[in-house]
Amino acid sequence: MQSFRPNPLAPDSLSRALDQFSFHIRHFALYRSIPPHQDKTTVGVQFKLVFLVCGRVDFEAGSRRFVMNPGDALVIPPFIRYTARCTTDEETEYGYAYFDLADSAMEEEFTSLLDCALPALYRGVLAEAELGTICRMVHGLSPEEPGAHREAHILLDWMVLQLARSLLHSSQAAHTAANDAGAQLVRQCIGHLRRVPPREFSVAELCEFAHVTQSYLYKCFQREMNCSPQKFLTLYRLKLAERELCDSSATIQELAEQFGYTSAGAFSQAFKQHFSVSPAAWRQGQRDRTHREPD
Amino acid sequence: MQSFRPNPLAPDSLSRALDQFSFHIRHFALYRSIPPHQDKTTVGVQFKLVFLVCGRVDFEAGSRRFVMNPGDALVIPPFIRYTARCTTDEETEYGYAYFDLADSAMEEEFTSLLDCALPALYRGVLAEAELGTICRMVHGLSPEEPGAHREAHILLDWMVLQLARSLLHSSQAAHTAANDAGAQLVRQCIGHLRRVPPREFSVAELCEFAHVTQSYLYKCFQREMNCSPQKFLTLYRLKLAERELCDSSATIQELAEQFGYTSAGAFSQAFKQHFSVSPAAWRQGQRDRTHREPD
Repeated sequence: MQSFRPNPLAPDSLSRALDQFSFHIRHFALYRSIPPHQDKTTVGVQFKLVFLVCGRVDFEAGSRRFVMNPGDALVIPPFIRYTARCTTDEETEYGYAYFDLADSAMEEEFTSLLDCALPALYRGVLAEAELGTICRMVHGLSPEEPGAHREAHILLDWMVLQLARSLLHSSQAAHTAANDAGAQLVRQCIGHLRRVPPREFSVAELCEFAHVTQSYLYKCFQREMNCSPQKFLTLYRLKLAERELCDSSATIQELAEQFGYTSAGAFSQAFKQHFSVSPAAWRQGQRDRTHREPD
Repeated sequence: MQSFRPNPLAPDSLSRALDQFSFHIRHFALYRSIPPHQDKTTVGVQFKLVFLVCGRVDFEAGSRRFVMNPGDALVIPPFIRYTARCTTDEETEYGYAYFDLADSAMEEEFTSLLDCALPALYRGVLAEAELGTICRMVHGLSPEEPGAHREAHILLDWMVLQLARSLLHSSQAAHTAANDAGAQLVRQCIGHLRRVPPREFSVAELCEFAHVTQSYLYKCFQREMNCSPQKFLTLYRLKLAERELCDSSATIQELAEQFGYTSAGAFSQAFKQHFSVSPAAWRQGQRDRTHREPD
């Protein structure tokens, strides 16, 4: 009769912390740039995880600047306007995932665990052999393949685990974001917005909460997020509205009211300006996608 | 302003089916055998997933015989007595995970999805490059490494996904287990045991449920499970008791009653005979392991 070897892998603190999070992945893909490279400046309303496969990339967002080498990964939180430059003459390839936390109330804990309330670089988290395997897996992710959705989540879970581990192992020196007053102010404001109904979002409200002047708030947002507080609030409100649009059956009119727009038309216009499609078309697109299944 | 590419990875049926399962991993390790190899005959009370890295292994359990080559995986459900023989003169290496379903009520769905109510072979599910990466990861699993618990679960999730996919892709020809009457009878009995209080387990009860004679039941269990129905019931009851021992705070006396033993002493003796430690020591060991954390 076999005698048992007990499980040596009891849940540790890090595992338990990570077990709390589950993700909504929007997009998971590889991107290849062939010289001459073009700079890319963009801003997202989701978290973005990027891992570099080959080449070298200069990343710049507000006061943060990183040089990414193969095996490095980067997490960019929502609403950060950043510029990425491929700086070698070789082909550059990177993988990226856009994702939200399934439970948005967990965002603060997530950014705190990964130290990524502002863009964070994790050096050398992916060894060469792992990079190859991951590239093949990401490359193979196709909506037609049964289980692709689960595979994407497994991949993201694994990468997030590697990032969290690298933080524990590193001296944290590379993660300098957290400590200056401006960055802290911005993070506090984002935390505050999670507790305020979207229709009440205003720059004045943020100033009152943080006990700072509008011009200081402006300076801090501009430096850390590369956009004004007003612009940030617009994006943040739209992000929440977009999520509600997909998850609830509220009418456009109801959503407009809920998110503080003067009319359904004003909401539609703002949405369209940002997402390039109307709220109704976006909702329909998401539903079609959910129903159109590979098997 | 960036326009969104919608997520092409909508949840598909297979992803949703797999999302239902979460596992309790007991052990996840690599095993290396250097010639001269020794045959191994064993029986487990958990599911076992085995994947062959190098060498060749003949597997035999009841009426089922498989030849495993590198990249093949095998799932052995609980209570199967089997023999594994390394049949080449080279080094043989395999990885294995012992696991339970976190929700035992899901066992039937799990075995049905993976077609593994009896041992099932999945040919060529791991490509060579993946094998290398997985071996490194399993090799690196150490209780001292923060996140090891989560990494083991990620690895198991990924492998289970590959097995489920291979079933969809294959002609199912390799999975011949399901169709003969004896195998079906055994599977029905196991399903029935999930709905009966453990103290009522008896061979007579099973015969009545299945409308068969004791000698036919004996023949079927002996052929498919390589043990008698009585032995199977003893193992199954102990497995349930072991889980309850870890998860609840019931006393040994209470557990003895719950699982149909005449006394705490009789329970302890049966437990010790199988698990090589007393119920109290086993419980203490599990608790120590949970509290002794790497960080």
